[in-house]
Amino acid sequence: MRKELEERRRSLFEGAEFGCALFPNTHNYSQSFSYFAGCQIDSSYLVLKPSGGVLFVHQMNYNQAKESSYYPVRKIAKDAIEEIKTACGRAKVGVCMREISAAQFAAGKKAGLKLVEADRKVLSLRAQKSRQEAEFMANSARIARKILEGFDPWEYRTEKEAAKALKMLALQEGAEVCFEPIVASGKNARFPHYHPAEAKISDVVLVDFGVKHMRYCSDFTRCYFKSKNTPAFRDYEKCQQVFWGIFEKLGQCSEGKEVAAIAKKEMERAGLPKLVHAIGHGVGLEVHEAPYLGANSKDKLGVGTVIALEPAAYKGTYGVRFEEMVILTQKGWKLL
Amino acid sequence: MRKELEERRRSLFEGAEFGCALFPNTHNYSQSFSYFAGCQIDSSYLVLKPSGGVLFVHQMNYNQAKESSYYPVRKIAKDAIEEIKTACGRAKVGVCMREISAAQFAAGKKAGLKLVEADRKVLSLRAQKSRQEAEFMANSARIARKILEGFDPWEYRTEKEAAKALKMLALQEGAEVCFEPIVASGKNARFPHYHPAEAKISDVVLVDFGVKHMRYCSDFTRCYFKSKNTPAFRDYEKCQQVFWGIFEKLGQCSEGKEVAAIAKKEMERAGLPKLVHAIGHGVGLEVHEAPYLGANSKDKLGVGTVIALEPAAYKGTYGVRFEEMVILTQKGWKLL
Repeated sequence: MRKELEERRRSLFEGAEFGCALFPNTHNYSQSFSYFAGCQIDSSYLVLKPSGGVLFVHQMNYNQAKESSYYPVRKIAKDAIEEIKTACGRAKVGVCMREISAAQFAAGKKAGLKLVEADRKVLSLRAQKSRQEAEFMANSARIARKILEGFDPWEYRTEKEAAKALKMLALQEGAEVCFEPIVASGKNARFPHYHPAEAKISDVVLVDFGVKHMRYCSDFTRCYFKSKNTPAFRDYEKCQQVFWGIFEKLGQCSEGKEVAAIAKKEMERAGLPKLVHAIGHGVGLEVHEAPYLGANSKDKLGVGTVIALEPAAYKGTYGVRFEEMVILTQKGWKLL
Repeated sequence: MRKELEERRRSLFEGAEFGCALFPNTHNYSQSFSYFAGCQIDSSYLVLKPSGGVLFVHQMNYNQAKESSYYPVRKIAKDAIEEIKTACGRAKVGVCMREISAAQFAAGKKAGLKLVEADRKVLSLRAQKSRQEAEFMANSARIARKILEGFDPWEYRTEKEAAKALKMLALQEGAEVCFEPIVASGKNARFPHYHPAEAKISDVVLVDFGVKHMRYCSDFTRCYFKSKNTPAFRDYEKCQQVFWGIFEKLGQCSEGKEVAAIAKKEMERAGLPKLVHAIGHGVGLEVHEAPYLGANSKDKLGVGTVIALEPAAYKGTYGVRFEEMVILTQKGWKLL
């Protein structure tokens, strides 16, 4: 871990316009904080410089932080922002604008910190998984796939019960769900982000499910059918064809928008309607992260990139979606 | 719900300096969004005015939002911020600085929205639970208490296994944990925010646990002892005395800092060391919310206020904490 954290810090400052970086882990958990700190300590602030770092912590977590932090730990004496300012000196301070609150940003500005956006740098680093991270992700994917393969939605009466069962199964496997599982019965699956309710499990069920294991997420969608002789099943087969069609051409893509363009063509070729959401997204410490796969995305795809692809068809009376995770290795794209 | 949402919106603008309010529910789930919207739709923005509101949603959630939103739903055509700007007109726009990201704030500013802080107003509204909310909270508390009362940590080998069991029990009760349960065995309990690990369950175990049910949180801490003839058990008894000591005097308090002052005295009287954290905190849609109970807190206590009080003793070789939830009713403070 030590070596990996050093490498992450080195990469963060490579060609960066900031000489310091600040990752608060206060109101909400910040995944970029854990990425760079290598631990989870709440009510704390990680300050990084090219030469090293310091973890500022609330007094209540001081002893705990000393045991788990790679970086030296300092107890916040009185005013976190003032102490961070002293640590940063006159350097520009990179922050993830997407992860810090407007309140934190305003407090930093007011104290005189020269805050600048570090999101693109941080997100692109996080998007390129190291060998160790790729292993964690593969484990997370393995657990989710195993659960979905053994899952029989008709063992449950309602969507909510099936969703609860998925949460239990994740815990039994030593993981936990990384988002509220979507269990959408029948026509409810026409809503991409449906919330499971009291609806009875019918003959067609969509399950969108992923787990978090060792902090890394997975994300899959499977549909379950009582009968294969239905338009829904045929559309589900088309979604799978689209997935494999994109998968074969991923090697030609170096940016997110190229994946989007290929996906558009594959959807048309399969005769499926235009998607109301992106064809997929990066996955890692968060279930949705870089690379973004929208039509204008310039996010780079490189060795270690992990994406979930989710071709879907939303019709008036049903919805189907097939979602798989892939990773770009030295030898090309592979199923994760 | 309709009436309650109307009442919340009315209260929001009562004496407010803003004529419009914006609650994004995009990158992270915002509890203030669900408080005012009464539903959970991701990738959306709630715009409120004294006269009504509009929910701007991503096209993929449009049909779903139409079914679940009290406020009229509009599909974001192209640029959310520009469309919100048109909806807000020239009014000042209140936002929760603590809940929106610095990126969202910057985008709003850039588009010309006159953003102002609405946190105090929103948090103080959320702190005063309605009758309906108080019922939800009592249910959440009931479930957590029931689980903790029936919980036997020695049925499990390690802290992690015990924590996993607590998560399963919450699911079985139709709820789920609202934060990672703390199961701290022996001296690990000297860290207030310990993360369960592979440590064996020993003779003294601290469990800090709460559930979320119908979106409302609960928060309790109990310690479990093999033997009562220990300094740890005696300190745990003192924590309970401190709790009841504070409880009796809560009626005298109208602000958070008064609770802190009383707690300080009660801790001293019991011969317990000064706390390294606040004596407690408000609980509601979030497990930590207003009122803040720090030494300088001017947060008001009023009918409907729910707080968790958690006197504790952290010593070199052990830690104990007792945490209970109370609510201020028309007839005074009661256990929730």
